[in-house]
Amino acid sequence: MAESSTATRESHRVVAPEGLPPRRAYVGARTWRVYLAGEIHTGWRDEIADGIGAHDLPIAFSGPVTRHSLSDDIGVKILGREEDEFWRDHKSSGINAIRRHIHLQEADIVVARFDDEHKELNVAFDAGVAAGFGKPIVAYHDPDLDHALKDLDQAAFAVARTAEQVVRILRYVVEA
Amino acid sequence: MAESSTATRESHRVVAPEGLPPRRAYVGARTWRVYLAGEIHTGWRDEIADGIGAHDLPIAFSGPVTRHSLSDDIGVKILGREEDEFWRDHKSSGINAIRRHIHLQEADIVVARFDDEHKELNVAFDAGVAAGFGKPIVAYHDPDLDHALKDLDQAAFAVARTAEQVVRILRYVVEA
Amino acid sequence: MAESSTATRESHRVVAPEGLPPRRAYVGARTWRVYLAGEIHTGWRDEIADGIGAHDLPIAFSGPVTRHSLSDDIGVKILGREEDEFWRDHKSSGINAIRRHIHLQEADIVVARFDDEHKELNVAFDAGVAAGFGKPIVAYHDPDLDHALKDLDQAAFAVARTAEQVVRILRYVVEA
Amino acid sequence: MAESSTATRESHRVVAPEGLPPRRAYVGARTWRVYLAGEIHTGWRDEIADGIGAHDLPIAFSGPVTRHSLSDDIGVKILGREEDEFWRDHKSSGINAIRRHIHLQEADIVVARFDDEHKELNVAFDAGVAAGFGKPIVAYHDPDLDHALKDLDQAAFAVARTAEQVVRILRYVVEA
Amino acid sequence: MAESSTATRESHRVVAPEGLPPRRAYVGARTWRVYLAGEIHTGWRDEIADGIGAHDLPIAFSGPVTRHSLSDDIGVKILGREEDEFWRDHKSSGINAIRRHIHLQEADIVVARFDDEHKELNVAFDAGVAAGFGKPIVAYHDPDLDHALKDLDQAAFAVARTAEQVVRILRYVVEA
Amino acid sequence: MAESSTATRESHRVVAPEGLPPRRAYVGARTWRVYLAGEIHTGWRDEIADGIGAHDLPIAFSGPVTRHSLSDDIGVKILGREEDEFWRDHKSSGINAIRRHIHLQEADIVVARFDDEHKELNVAFDAGVAAGFGKPIVAYHDPDLDHALKDLDQAAFAVARTAEQVVRILRYVVEA
Amino acid sequence: MAESSTATRESHRVVAPEGLPPRRAYVGARTWRVYLAGEIHTGWRDEIADGIGAHDLPIAFSGPVTRHSLSDDIGVKILGREEDEFWRDHKSSGINAIRRHIHLQEADIVVARFDDEHKELNVAFDAGVAAGFGKPIVAYHDPDLDHALKDLDQAAFAVARTAEQVVRILRYVVEA
Amino acid sequence: MAESSTATRESHRVVAPEGLPPRRAYVGARTWRVYLAGEIHTGWRDEIADGIGAHDLPIAFSGPVTRHSLSDDIGVKILGREEDEFWRDHKSSGINAIRRHIHLQEADIVVARFDDEHKELNVAFDAGVAAGFGKPIVAYHDPDLDHALKDLDQAAFAVARTAEQVVRILRYVVEA
Repeated sequence: MAESSTATRESHRVVAPEGLPPRRAYVGARTWRVYLAGEIHTGWRDEIADGIGAHDLPIAFSGPVTRHSLSDDIGVKILGREEDEFWRDHKSSGINAIRRHIHLQEADIVVARFDDEHKELNVAFDAGVAAGFGKPIVAYHDPDLDHALKDLDQAAFAVARTAEQVVRILRYVVEA
Repeated sequence: MAESSTATRESHRVVAPEGLPPRRAYVGARTWRVYLAGEIHTGWRDEIADGIGAHDLPIAFSGPVTRHSLSDDIGVKILGREEDEFWRDHKSSGINAIRRHIHLQEADIVVARFDDEHKELNVAFDAGVAAGFGKPIVAYHDPDLDHALKDLDQAAFAVARTAEQVVRILRYVVEA
Repeated sequence: MAESSTATRESHRVVAPEGLPPRRAYVGARTWRVYLAGEIHTGWRDEIADGIGAHDLPIAFSGPVTRHSLSDDIGVKILGREEDEFWRDHKSSGINAIRRHIHLQEADIVVARFDDEHKELNVAFDAGVAAGFGKPIVAYHDPDLDHALKDLDQAAFAVARTAEQVVRILRYVVEA
Repeated sequence: MAESSTATRESHRVVAPEGLPPRRAYVGARTWRVYLAGEIHTGWRDEIADGIGAHDLPIAFSGPVTRHSLSDDIGVKILGREEDEFWRDHKSSGINAIRRHIHLQEADIVVARFDDEHKELNVAFDAGVAAGFGKPIVAYHDPDLDHALKDLDQAAFAVARTAEQVVRILRYVVEA
Repeated sequence: MAESSTATRESHRVVAPEGLPPRRAYVGARTWRVYLAGEIHTGWRDEIADGIGAHDLPIAFSGPVTRHSLSDDIGVKILGREEDEFWRDHKSSGINAIRRHIHLQEADIVVARFDDEHKELNVAFDAGVAAGFGKPIVAYHDPDLDHALKDLDQAAFAVARTAEQVVRILRYVVEA
Repeated sequence: MAESSTATRESHRVVAPEGLPPRRAYVGARTWRVYLAGEIHTGWRDEIADGIGAHDLPIAFSGPVTRHSLSDDIGVKILGREEDEFWRDHKSSGINAIRRHIHLQEADIVVARFDDEHKELNVAFDAGVAAGFGKPIVAYHDPDLDHALKDLDQAAFAVARTAEQVVRILRYVVEA
Repeated sequence: MAESSTATRESHRVVAPEGLPPRRAYVGARTWRVYLAGEIHTGWRDEIADGIGAHDLPIAFSGPVTRHSLSDDIGVKILGREEDEFWRDHKSSGINAIRRHIHLQEADIVVARFDDEHKELNVAFDAGVAAGFGKPIVAYHDPDLDHALKDLDQAAFAVARTAEQVVRILRYVVEA
Repeated sequence: MAESSTATRESHRVVAPEGLPPRRAYVGARTWRVYLAGEIHTGWRDEIADGIGAHDLPIAFSGPVTRHSLSDDIGVKILGREEDEFWRDHKSSGINAIRRHIHLQEADIVVARFDDEHKELNVAFDAGVAAGFGKPIVAYHDPDLDHALKDLDQAAFAVARTAEQVVRILRYVVEA
């Protein structure tokens, strides 16, 4: 029981959000799992992870495999070559779906990222699956995608425009 | 009870699929509900509905509101004007989400349509919601979208290229 | 099978929403079930039912028992008297909960009505249960209750101010 | 395996509830998660937390953000200003809903607190969501709110009048 | 669509409960399914069915097979003899479980009947299964069984003492 | 309401099972949906359907497409040829899975048939899916397959050896 | 990650069941939660706990509060006196239901114990709730209760006659 | 909280898959549970476990009891002898089902293994149960079983031919 009550007491050390006085914490410790859905070509995940990392929060991120060619070729690389491009993609997508399915199902929050160069249909699909699973979604995109993403935004709990806003939302959710 | 057993007997009149001899049907009557997700600017839904209609099958289609301006403006039209475009979309999306949510939840099959001019993120989102609900999906798009839709295609039960293929799949599922 | 395909064909007679030309309907027939949660002292349910009734739409309304004293006394009336007011309420609430539970679970849409004189906690509780069940909610209240209902409104798909707006939302959802 | 069996043996140290002799415990260790829904202006949560804290029980509390202005303004503070009060609330409620949704879903028990000055509709809504999720609810309010909360009370597993009663219920549930 | 709106209009003919003036009905037609769990030796089901039948309500009852020897012997009768009494019961229980499982899952309400001579464990088990499925339960037994059934009663929505009380509860739920 | 109460009264005409006197029926009308999983080369489904048909029971059967070559080739026939046998099967299985998935999910009872020449892995897989969905299973096979099917049999509600036994089980479930 | 892989390696130390040679374990560590439903007057839970304790297995037992008068009186003791015995029981049952509900939902296995002097309806109800939740049940009673418990036994995964048999089943499930 | 953030930091030590440079890990630590369904006569599970073991990954394997005679005889060994072979199997299968049910429900991934000598119906049934539970399946069998397993393969996320391929898929899912 010592262990449990320690966990409870540890939670009293929760730090206050920026600019606010420390407070008596009554919220127990938990690890928050955040799935970062979105394109895998730019460093937006690092921006968020760095923003969170600076505050040492109990957040564990997950997301798709970010090495593009590894992700695209994993099917044929492991399971053997395919002539047809469609089946080549299919094999890779199957293996990627195993991990995405598991990560999405155990995520507490799903961040869905789009930008002007990466209006990725597969990301919108992932966000839909997450919504179908009942996960809270944070959309993250510029205003010029608002109309194209209006149904996703309506289903989202928040629509952020910058990585810093995502970080602040996560900090508030975890710390406040 | 007469009614029920009549229903059972009626099902014996199920016609055989094209080019096949009539058969003793053992499958009871049901109405199949098919949600047609996809762009609302071209007549692809009519092609499918006409193809099915020619065979008098027990299929009831549903889908988004296809009058574009009605769908886009319904929020402010009913609930009052908004300065901000974002909230204008939000209000319409909320009302549209009521019917989409209900239709997707009671659909037996969801067809998700994309073409080169309409790579709609909201459609991919809808297909994801349907997948999260456990609905069988039939993807319908040209091969040049295969890579962009590889995860959706992997989750789909079939990937069709033409309205006629969608019609034939539905006919097989309902009649065979 | 005739019955089913008739049902499909019947759906072609769906009338267009006010001010819009008739259209080729592709949506099959269904009955939409709408639960009207809210106070039982004024005639707001009749306003909505009349508004819908004028258009002969396939909507079946349900809601709490609206005869106040019957609803309040049903427990002791059927199951025997109680000294204690708490248990008197408890017995009635139990019987009322049977029908509310069933109606909420099978509702397609839940309308939650509040006004300045009827900020009913039990109605907010019902709306919460409906939200927990995943039902689309239409909130219906004046702007001066916005802050007091902000979490319910956030979870709602639409926030209406008048019975007519509720009617128009339901008509759009069912007919458009 | 040592770890697991240690956990089991630790549980033998469970202390007996007040006034009862120690006993051979056969219940394994777990952390009980209790969500404290209710107004955020008075110190009722501290009363309960202190009551539990005195006994070093494995209970982790969660609840809404209790700094009122932070909670109310978080939306515009992070995501940018809004002219309209409704959307200001909406943005904050969305972010607050992320954490409430997660906390309610993982709670073992939900305490719902009301007093004469705080008959909060949003709290009743939260309790309804929790009930819809199948969570055991402990209502906590004075008798003069009994009629106004009769449906919530009927759905609750216990109706407490004081913080001490809530503490004793939690202690019994965790320790007995 | 005519059919659906007819159904809606029909519902306007709902009669008022005993001693109450007719009213404008706004509740759509539905068939209420009530499972009558309990001993199969006395005529209590007929009392309830007759009470309901007198009012021509849309209630469809289901329940266990009431011909005792048929129910007990159905396993060996269809599937072949067994030496061992345990397996004889097992085979019958398996077949009976098919129908009980289906009836319980589609029931709207489950009535659980016990009397002094029939404190049947299998009935309490059935009621538990129904409770696990989330079905509203109406317990029906004499006060001298109150202590022995206190957990079942606590989970029930009402505790009736007579068949007439059960009838009145069902009438209220369906008609009020 | 007339319709519903008619349905209730109709149910009074339920005939008694073979060799039993007519009885006062209290069970409402419903259509029972039975999925017949198993090989598609012999006429075992007809034996069951004929056995049921002779008694005019409200049972609607479903099952896989029984024209072998149609079922095997449907993928390439509709969606275009494949070089690789694996993908040829995959395309057909996808389309067949749409209807199997829907039929299994709405089945009340699943019969799983195996014989010495048809120990079909896909049938065992289907039965497993049905069990995972919580459907009652009736296994139907000879004793020499008992050991090979012991886990499936354990999960089944009954193990039949002949088509007549399956018919009698269904009759009892529906009529008794 | 060291922690996790240690956990995996630890699992290699799993001891073999009685009379069997040690083996290479490939099953990871987990704590098995077993709810012991049944009468609270005799020491049967200790027999099982001792049997398991002797083997230092990762099993955490839970069950009802076994101090009879505490369990019976807890409602009035905490929440205040009641004149009526029925409501006295009701208050206690409500509080007991909180912990039973939580324990049953997180149990891996539920043992349901009956003996000739304790044919407790509430225990059968608990077992039913567990079955409705999909939990594997081990029934534990003498053969003379077989007929009275035939439906519960049919739903159970095993029917044991002695505490030692229960212990051996649990050991096999956890260790084999 | 230290513990949680340690866990997060630990995850930064995740090693890169074979032949790839180390990377900044953003995925938190978790233990992946993999159920290995399939025959219990050859050493295929060891091949996979060894392949994984060499990389020290956080994977915990589970599966059926692999000592054949223990698994087959456990029912009568614990619960007493049976004359009839069918009930002998039934008793063992019941006990084995307890652990299989629990392991399958908590598995992240299910591997289903078949070879020419072991086309086990019970394994296909297990895979079906897992699919019904929504678990990602990796099929593992030679091409000559492709047609016999086409429906299972279609439902699987990957079809592997060698133990090494299974190992590489698991490594990719866990590490990439």
